[in-house]
Amino acid sequence: MLVENFDLELESCLKLPKVAGNAAESRTKTATMKNSYTGKEQYYNDYLGLDKILSAQQLESEAQGVDAHDEMLFIIVHQAYELWFKQVQHELSSILKIFDEQYINDNSKGLQVATHRLNRVVEIWKLLVAQVRVMETMTPMDFLDFRDLLTPASGFQSFQFRLIETRLGLKMDHRHAKKYYEKQLRAEHIEAIKAAENSLSLFELLDNWLARMPFWQLDYWQNFEQKAGENAEMHPFWAHYRGIYLAGLKGSERSEISMKAFDELFFAQENRPVRLSEKACRSALFIYLYREYPLLQQPFQLLNKLLELDELMSTFRYRHMIMVRRMIGMRAGTGGSSGAGYLEGAMNKHHIFGDLASLATYLIPRNLLPELDQKLVKDLSFRL
Amino acid sequence: MLVENFDLELESCLKLPKVAGNAAESRTKTATMKNSYTGKEQYYNDYLGLDKILSAQQLESEAQGVDAHDEMLFIIVHQAYELWFKQVQHELSSILKIFDEQYINDNSKGLQVATHRLNRVVEIWKLLVAQVRVMETMTPMDFLDFRDLLTPASGFQSFQFRLIETRLGLKMDHRHAKKYYEKQLRAEHIEAIKAAENSLSLFELLDNWLARMPFWQLDYWQNFEQKAGENAEMHPFWAHYRGIYLAGLKGSERSEISMKAFDELFFAQENRPVRLSEKACRSALFIYLYREYPLLQQPFQLLNKLLELDELMSTFRYRHMIMVRRMIGMRAGTGGSSGAGYLEGAMNKHHIFGDLASLATYLIPRNLLPELDQKLVKDLSFRL
Amino acid sequence: MLVENFDLELESCLKLPKVAGNAAESRTKTATMKNSYTGKEQYYNDYLGLDKILSAQQLESEAQGVDAHDEMLFIIVHQAYELWFKQVQHELSSILKIFDEQYINDNSKGLQVATHRLNRVVEIWKLLVAQVRVMETMTPMDFLDFRDLLTPASGFQSFQFRLIETRLGLKMDHRHAKKYYEKQLRAEHIEAIKAAENSLSLFELLDNWLARMPFWQLDYWQNFEQKAGENAEMHPFWAHYRGIYLAGLKGSERSEISMKAFDELFFAQENRPVRLSEKACRSALFIYLYREYPLLQQPFQLLNKLLELDELMSTFRYRHMIMVRRMIGMRAGTGGSSGAGYLEGAMNKHHIFGDLASLATYLIPRNLLPELDQKLVKDLSFRL
Amino acid sequence: MLVENFDLELESCLKLPKVAGNAAESRTKTATMKNSYTGKEQYYNDYLGLDKILSAQQLESEAQGVDAHDEMLFIIVHQAYELWFKQVQHELSSILKIFDEQYINDNSKGLQVATHRLNRVVEIWKLLVAQVRVMETMTPMDFLDFRDLLTPASGFQSFQFRLIETRLGLKMDHRHAKKYYEKQLRAEHIEAIKAAENSLSLFELLDNWLARMPFWQLDYWQNFEQKAGENAEMHPFWAHYRGIYLAGLKGSERSEISMKAFDELFFAQENRPVRLSEKACRSALFIYLYREYPLLQQPFQLLNKLLELDELMSTFRYRHMIMVRRMIGMRAGTGGSSGAGYLEGAMNKHHIFGDLASLATYLIPRNLLPELDQKLVKDLSFRL
Repeated sequence: MLVENFDLELESCLKLPKVAGNAAESRTKTATMKNSYTGKEQYYNDYLGLDKILSAQQLESEAQGVDAHDEMLFIIVHQAYELWFKQVQHELSSILKIFDEQYINDNSKGLQVATHRLNRVVEIWKLLVAQVRVMETMTPMDFLDFRDLLTPASGFQSFQFRLIETRLGLKMDHRHAKKYYEKQLRAEHIEAIKAAENSLSLFELLDNWLARMPFWQLDYWQNFEQKAGENAEMHPFWAHYRGIYLAGLKGSERSEISMKAFDELFFAQENRPVRLSEKACRSALFIYLYREYPLLQQPFQLLNKLLELDELMSTFRYRHMIMVRRMIGMRAGTGGSSGAGYLEGAMNKHHIFGDLASLATYLIPRNLLPELDQKLVKDLSFRL
Repeated sequence: MLVENFDLELESCLKLPKVAGNAAESRTKTATMKNSYTGKEQYYNDYLGLDKILSAQQLESEAQGVDAHDEMLFIIVHQAYELWFKQVQHELSSILKIFDEQYINDNSKGLQVATHRLNRVVEIWKLLVAQVRVMETMTPMDFLDFRDLLTPASGFQSFQFRLIETRLGLKMDHRHAKKYYEKQLRAEHIEAIKAAENSLSLFELLDNWLARMPFWQLDYWQNFEQKAGENAEMHPFWAHYRGIYLAGLKGSERSEISMKAFDELFFAQENRPVRLSEKACRSALFIYLYREYPLLQQPFQLLNKLLELDELMSTFRYRHMIMVRRMIGMRAGTGGSSGAGYLEGAMNKHHIFGDLASLATYLIPRNLLPELDQKLVKDLSFRL
Repeated sequence: MLVENFDLELESCLKLPKVAGNAAESRTKTATMKNSYTGKEQYYNDYLGLDKILSAQQLESEAQGVDAHDEMLFIIVHQAYELWFKQVQHELSSILKIFDEQYINDNSKGLQVATHRLNRVVEIWKLLVAQVRVMETMTPMDFLDFRDLLTPASGFQSFQFRLIETRLGLKMDHRHAKKYYEKQLRAEHIEAIKAAENSLSLFELLDNWLARMPFWQLDYWQNFEQKAGENAEMHPFWAHYRGIYLAGLKGSERSEISMKAFDELFFAQENRPVRLSEKACRSALFIYLYREYPLLQQPFQLLNKLLELDELMSTFRYRHMIMVRRMIGMRAGTGGSSGAGYLEGAMNKHHIFGDLASLATYLIPRNLLPELDQKLVKDLSFRL
Repeated sequence: MLVENFDLELESCLKLPKVAGNAAESRTKTATMKNSYTGKEQYYNDYLGLDKILSAQQLESEAQGVDAHDEMLFIIVHQAYELWFKQVQHELSSILKIFDEQYINDNSKGLQVATHRLNRVVEIWKLLVAQVRVMETMTPMDFLDFRDLLTPASGFQSFQFRLIETRLGLKMDHRHAKKYYEKQLRAEHIEAIKAAENSLSLFELLDNWLARMPFWQLDYWQNFEQKAGENAEMHPFWAHYRGIYLAGLKGSERSEISMKAFDELFFAQENRPVRLSEKACRSALFIYLYREYPLLQQPFQLLNKLLELDELMSTFRYRHMIMVRRMIGMRAGTGGSSGAGYLEGAMNKHHIFGDLASLATYLIPRNLLPELDQKLVKDLSFRL
């Protein structure tokens, strides 16, 4: 949209060359031309607030009379990250709002709008990963030119990043090295994060939404009468599915332990092995299995986008960690392994939608998939 | 450097967990801790000027009470572009300064610093190309929600982009559809661009620097005495090289026309087929041919980075054009082909360092390359 | 899936360390272990046909005793392209088959499978664009080492690429510089391309599928009775829409010409301004406008993926052209502008799904969008 | 170079349209035209061995009559990986050869050729990382369609990948879960890897080359006479540097431990904390510190490329691991943490050039850098 060829649009909007009689006059007028709807004198610079944006780079090295060419890069890279974080928040707010509505179903436009916007967040995150490469053009020696002027400020204090994690579903209590957060962030920021924790996160809203999935009343499942050897307390579909799954395990896999793992994940209401509720796990697995029915398509895409986002945030952390190692070496963990330890901890603990990935363990091959009742098939499809 | 794992650094800088005796106290103090050199209370938010950065998104749709979710994306994408343009300017200023110095040679550190920073500009531009993909997550219908509120503002008015082009070497007079510029930009911006035109651009500085290349005095070329059939007015190396080049052309290529093209490019002082001077063309070709000598390595890398930048700016224009077409269709050229015409024009005319690419036409295979005099080889190498 | 961590899988599949009693014995046996279903001795190398793959690099320079290190890169880059082209063909075949079926609708799984596989083709094409960068690590001088040994072979002869274009919808008669094809390709390859032309291409199948879109019978459109000033011959929705569209044009745009352009695109059966039929244009526009209804979601995604593919193929051509220019300079067009001319021609003419992009011209803002009849809304939604 | 626009080149090479008198005749002849040097009938398909390449996809699912559309993708992705691995080997062979020569210095062309080719390997590896995304278009359900037909073959058995690791410097004894290798690979492949271990790896050659760095004889260091408090046994530069470094540490960092860490890394000949020799560590640090001198430029770039390659291989492993988790869930580690454990182990242990990154710990700010003797400055510079 930007630069250069935007004039493609201009030509049709303005038609100046052809309309204006007096070229000299139009020349001076154009740059102050008004918007025909708002009466505003729209100019690119003003519209984008560039005076603010482009004056926000205050080099500490300059203030201190130190020569450090690369501090500009350091500032701008981080400002670009924060700009994108604002955009992510914008999308996230709208997605949370959609999921927070009383009743989101597949006829409301909400689900596909949410998926579309989640996809945008995914594309943004790809950019954030790519951006690490620009940062890496700064060598360790160039960083040393101004590094000492920055402490104790640190990216750890990125309030927006913390907030994104929180709103997606990371709880303060699950954070690695949680105590740092309380030390590092300003009181107002900690309060805001705590406030966000008190609202439902995307993870929780997703859990609720999955758990609410209809279709489990028994008249949809008349093909699935309980058979001998199946658990009578389970919904007949799951009793049946569980049998197929366990039968598919080879040799030593088909053990008491496997059955227990299956039951804990999909049925236990307490001491859950994952954060996702047992109901939500069942619904998500059902979506994976029968994604080809029209009604499950959008939910399937949504789950996939969440996984993709989780992967990208995780890759971002990893790329970032490698870059930091290269930049400052082992300074971090001078005292021992705590530096490296922290990083690995954060990478593993800060997965938010990883539960969805672990469901893949419990899929069965398509050719073993039970056929659904016609009544259900009908309701998963269009009238057409 | 940012977020999350930056605390790797924190741990070593602060050593708080280990040093602080009173955890409760340190908790409140940390976020206002002072920098040990400057005495400043450094905090991530303040250091990065985030109050300015994150308050610079003024949605016109919001002001007008129109619902247009995607205007935020539109603004932030462009702000991110402008942030990066500022960084590009920062690098460009330092590169121009280096080339503007009385005497830049291969022992000064300037050449490699310039190449290093040019490489950073290249990496930034890769990001700018990738960023188009984020913009493309906006559909034409979503753009229509607020498009009319923007006119006549347009990316065409990106002053920084114009300035970058100018400082790299694009003259107002060579711009496609030059008259638009004068109509679209504010007087102060036009003035600034004209002022920039009056300073030497990178293209001109490069031309001068190449033209100044030493080593052409005859005592370096005693192996290359003029031979029968060679042009006596030419430097013996070039007379010889020209012979090899022309002999290598096949059949119909080895014509009067080819010789003329060669001579015009490398020797004509007037009516030049390219913008680069004949001296500079010869030096650049020499660098391509003998890049393996240590002294020519850095110059070779510099030329390559300039070409890479030119390619990326060109790809950026192309990707951008395709995106615009998809977004607004043919609205642009309602009246005819002028829209498409402009775009192709800009893409072809706005190449700045394309002359360097066209030199590839005149290379000869390595096995035919004349061996240099030992005196020259010595001066192209280290003492070692 | 590959390398290194694939053993993640191995551990569970084999359980060798725990199962095998005799470690020394298992060591020798493992590599020849059999698949429990097929009884085959599956080994990575054999399964992937690596003997063939890795012995297919016959360096012409080696055969001729010439030293040309980079010929290997040249061969492998092209082989990688051809491997991916085979994959693209594989996806394309399945997509054509789906569209070729008697009756593809939104309850059949076909539509979403086709979209999913088209998305894969899009991801592959991103890789093909990125791959150009690897090729660019070859310098012009390095190419000259073996270039003369290749003629007259050329990438122009990539049969698979031609076939992909054909199956997507590019006709031989629409190709730029069509005569080259007949000269360059082997008779058997030309025959195969012609045969492919005689089958319906994806473009044609898409056209038919769009044209078949139901919902136009009048009982769905009782809200849209013909009003004064509306074209009585048009379907009432389109008569109405056309009025809104034309009213939205500003000043000079709202002319006879615009109305004519609209009518030609959406209603003329002859002398069409685009390849897409008038019926298909209407359906595609309708999908863009009302994409938020569940039934139109999948079709909308499909159209978007086709556009994305078209963009990527076009960007690939562009990146490739720039790379060739850098590699061989202007050798191509020695005789004049024909080289450059060809390239621009191919880039502009070989767009296949560009018609879809041009529809964006005729969208109207969402807030002006006519509300649909309840009967239609119902059929565009799920029963739920 | 490939496809479509390659004809740019054709036009100049063939000149057929203009030269040939009889168009009809040339049409049939062209595709079998001979190369003017070799007399071969060069045709794209034959030159690239496409018959082999494109017939190497033997779907096991097809053989077994199972429907598994995505097996083709699985095979082709891995074949593409192996093609690129062959290219990496090709570059690696030439790099090892260069470093293995009696005397590689900065006047030989070897160093820059090695750096150039290492850069190509880096670009290839970026592609390998990007390629994971194509693989991810396969869903877990689609993989299940044919997964059981593959066992026990696995990417773990990629002989080329193992060999690349070995030739870069990973020893069998340092591999995580080393015993698997012996079980998984064919005897001939294990033998080949062991043979490669007996040649000097790039790591070892680099170590030797760094350790050989000249300039340490005392006449280069007359400015650096031993001062009070400096370690008399150390080279005067390092005694001095060590003092500056330790003085720069803040508070608790400036301890016995830090001095010990410094001395162990740069001086201990036994019980080394890293694989790199103490001499090589000193030379590498010196290169980082004084990279701006012409003679150290190329070595600096080489070290950087090695680090970049290490980072990319590590990112590749990480992306791959995430993808595998998503594809097969926790099947791997059914029994517990061993799956995850292996992966983390491999990621951490298989770094090869990580020692270079850790040197960043010991850099000092540029403004504290000792000035070198004029004699040394002269020898680090060009004669010019």
